[in-house]
Amino acid sequence: MEALKQKILRDATVVGDDVLKVDNFLNHQIDIKFLNEIGKEFRDRFDDVRVDKILTIEASGIAIASIAAQYFDNVPVVFAKKTESKNLDKEVYEASVYSFTKDKEYKIKVSKRYLNEGENILILDDFLARARASLGLIDIIKQAKANPIGVGIVIEKSYQDGRREIEEEGIRLESLAMIDSLKEGKIQFR
Amino acid sequence: MEALKQKILRDATVVGDDVLKVDNFLNHQIDIKFLNEIGKEFRDRFDDVRVDKILTIEASGIAIASIAAQYFDNVPVVFAKKTESKNLDKEVYEASVYSFTKDKEYKIKVSKRYLNEGENILILDDFLARARASLGLIDIIKQAKANPIGVGIVIEKSYQDGRREIEEEGIRLESLAMIDSLKEGKIQFR
Repeated sequence: MEALKQKILRDATVVGDDVLKVDNFLNHQIDIKFLNEIGKEFRDRFDDVRVDKILTIEASGIAIASIAAQYFDNVPVVFAKKTESKNLDKEVYEASVYSFTKDKEYKIKVSKRYLNEGENILILDDFLARARASLGLIDIIKQAKANPIGVGIVIEKSYQDGRREIEEEGIRLESLAMIDSLKEGKIQFR
Repeated sequence: MEALKQKILRDATVVGDDVLKVDNFLNHQIDIKFLNEIGKEFRDRFDDVRVDKILTIEASGIAIASIAAQYFDNVPVVFAKKTESKNLDKEVYEASVYSFTKDKEYKIKVSKRYLNEGENILILDDFLARARASLGLIDIIKQAKANPIGVGIVIEKSYQDGRREIEEEGIRLESLAMIDSLKEGKIQFR
């Protein structure tokens, strides 16, 4: 997605050799108009499949999924919870996700009421690196006997093994920007 | 907002005397089409003020703020972070928020880059009870020398003191549904 590459080159910053900061338009301050362009692009990429629901994970996936859902006939969005919540149902699907950035394992949870057998579920998220979050969401979708019909990612770090992991599950992955390297502060797209 | 009351009566559940669960349309599964109605209603309520930016707090405020922003000329959304993040700037505005549901104090943070002096900031969030989160956001806006021009809330628990706290700050509060009591599992609107 050319507009996204331009946006990244203009607005993102690289920290070290691995961190791409996009907090001025994607995951702290959110550029709503641009997110609509991203939503349309996801619709184009997954135009050939029926999508019943969009699944994402708090917090940075929520804006992306919510805006994108408008281009998928306003399907419901469900976001997996990372934190304990008094208001979460007792009956949940649960998966363990290892975070390399935080060097710890955490649980993600989705109420059993919001994923149903046979539904086609599209996963959307901001970043893909080692794909731990996406694999956790796929695990949860399978527990619900629903169909993980695809993963849509805004920015893929293609130099890590996330894509391989997802494709080995037999699941389609569409990334709007693929980055081959962030070495020496330079953003190199595929 | 009559449609919201109807939605609450149809889809929300009451737990104990104080918890209103709206996780099937507002803060776990999200009804995107209905959120658009909420967004339009916020625009109508704040039609007489210039809004430069919408500020909310992760996680459940993000979808509401993002969809609503589309009705405010796509102004940027900023969400305050509750959790430590490696990718957050070092230079942040910070406030302490006491959570009664979790019985602990936590910090909320916004990068100094995303709130600017003189900007008109509208706060949007899902719930207002004792207003601790909103007061924390107001504190942060004031630190930035920006103007907290209003607080928009989807569901206000009017039997708690949040409204008084915000109005004592001289800030306008618009709640789309006001609840006087949840006692004995019955939802009583104002």
